[in-house]
Amino acid sequence: MSVTIETIGVIRTPFTQRSGMPIQGPLTPRYAGRVEVNPAWEGGLKDIEGFSHIILLYLFHQAGVCDRMHVKPFMDDHEHGIFAVRSPLRPNPIGLTTVRLVGREEATLFVEGVDMLDGTPLIDIKPYLAKVDAHPGATSGWAREGLEDATRHISDDRFGG
Amino acid sequence: MSVTIETIGVIRTPFTQRSGMPIQGPLTPRYAGRVEVNPAWEGGLKDIEGFSHIILLYLFHQAGVCDRMHVKPFMDDHEHGIFAVRSPLRPNPIGLTTVRLVGREEATLFVEGVDMLDGTPLIDIKPYLAKVDAHPGATSGWAREGLEDATRHISDDRFGG
Repeated sequence: MSVTIETIGVIRTPFTQRSGMPIQGPLTPRYAGRVEVNPAWEGGLKDIEGFSHIILLYLFHQAGVCDRMHVKPFMDDHEHGIFAVRSPLRPNPIGLTTVRLVGREEATLFVEGVDMLDGTPLIDIKPYLAKVDAHPGATSGWAREGLEDATRHISDDRFGG
Repeated sequence: MSVTIETIGVIRTPFTQRSGMPIQGPLTPRYAGRVEVNPAWEGGLKDIEGFSHIILLYLFHQAGVCDRMHVKPFMDDHEHGIFAVRSPLRPNPIGLTTVRLVGREEATLFVEGVDMLDGTPLIDIKPYLAKVDAHPGATSGWAREGLEDATRHISDDRFGG
């Protein structure tokens, strides 16, 4: 079964190449960006300002074809399954980042903690609900050490297309 | 811009109709389900067992066409923008649920906290990283009160197709 996904906007960030950018926004929350929703969907943003965080779903539009089952992630030196890793290389190249929402002007959202390329196609926005989405006690398997090592929180070009 | 998404498996749950089911799994975490990944992608699950929680992306395959900008969500009596609500009615009908991972047998994952219909098409699995995905202090706008009211955590059929 397959479905067609339409982009609903674009994400603007300081990052123009796949190397040297943040791998997970919340680990390097200082980077600001803009979510430019297509004006046709502006009405769908009503009341979003009440949320301090929003979840962005977007396309990894510069990822390579997913031609393997295992990858070596940025945060570790071992190979793990593509579904046990957050890399762009996956059957459906959909990315997920929770960003801080700091303002809105019509159909543009001002956010912090971006980790995607400038020009990334947006496919959905969901409000972040702490009571639903926050599981601070969750265990992080192979990534436990890498999550604490800031030298591992910046990308190279290993997953490019 | 549009892309084609291919399903990579199916989610099995106790829920066979859109009414009377949980609206957010973590609010009613007792419901168990299975994620049946297509055997062709089994290799991609390597090392996923180390994570206590995983993020499922799936299709709201029984949602209606998104023909409006505002909806009245289950957790409130007022209309809010479709991007300020987690309802199935959105331009790209992609759902997101974080579930607890309790076991694995080959390409089948045993999970708890399901909130999707039995037979829901799976499109991605991501490991949940507490340091990245948990924002327990995030504010929940219009949903603040509804999140605390268990009588509002069960669905009706208002968003069906």
